[in-house]
Amino acid sequence: MLYSDYATQNCSVARALEAVGERWTLLIIRELLRGPRRFSQLERDLQVSKNVLASRLEKLIVFGIADKPMGSDERPASRYELTPKGRDLFPVITALMAWGDAYEAPDGPPAVFVHSCGQPAGHHLVCDHCGDTVDVDTITVEAGPGLQC
Amino acid sequence: MLYSDYATQNCSVARALEAVGERWTLLIIRELLRGPRRFSQLERDLQVSKNVLASRLEKLIVFGIADKPMGSDERPASRYELTPKGRDLFPVITALMAWGDAYEAPDGPPAVFVHSCGQPAGHHLVCDHCGDTVDVDTITVEAGPGLQC
Repeated sequence: MLYSDYATQNCSVARALEAVGERWTLLIIRELLRGPRRFSQLERDLQVSKNVLASRLEKLIVFGIADKPMGSDERPASRYELTPKGRDLFPVITALMAWGDAYEAPDGPPAVFVHSCGQPAGHHLVCDHCGDTVDVDTITVEAGPGLQC
Repeated sequence: MLYSDYATQNCSVARALEAVGERWTLLIIRELLRGPRRFSQLERDLQVSKNVLASRLEKLIVFGIADKPMGSDERPASRYELTPKGRDLFPVITALMAWGDAYEAPDGPPAVFVHSCGQPAGHHLVCDHCGDTVDVDTITVEAGPGLQC
């Protein structure tokens, strides 16, 4: 499913963008992270054309990111929902939101993610191993097992 | 600078995608996070057309994400580099990479971010306030100060 123009890139960023990098796709995922949505709801809330929305949803299903579960009568239910793979895009959405809040929201953040502790969650990345902050100045890039493939 | 089709969205995700959501833009940022790059280097490493690359770089400069600093003789230097605003897109790139590693890298991650502690950094979001894990199940969305604007 790789598009020809990213196909030379053995890179997980490029491969992720093959799946979710088209215009509107990440906004559809943002909506579906809030819960299952009907086509008409997505069309209205996003103000996106039917054709584009249908095309993006179809691709999300092909990639296993969204699903349209069967109803009790074995016909497809009318609402789209994220699969676990789709829900795992949450950090991508939060990272975009945090950056947009910081740089493209002159009147302040339109929305705030409140953590289960009751306070704004912010956007803080820490190392899996030591728990200290991870940022561009504290990491180096090394070859991984998939480099040679 | 908002494009008409996202203009109705008072949302930091949509506004971030106005700046960086076009095809190739995030891959250019991925390259520039590794250090300043000449146009010809970007063209070769990304295998992207001159026209598209020039258009994306121009937009990154308009948004204050990248820059082409003056050389010592007051002519623009020949390398593009990220501004602090651009470097702050690091979490977006790492989130895409982590998801791509998990779901779109059947032979394993092509690259690994190693933290300054010497171990793989992973991708772990924690709450600014309490330090516990932040994920889609531990947050709620509340209105922020910019909602009314």
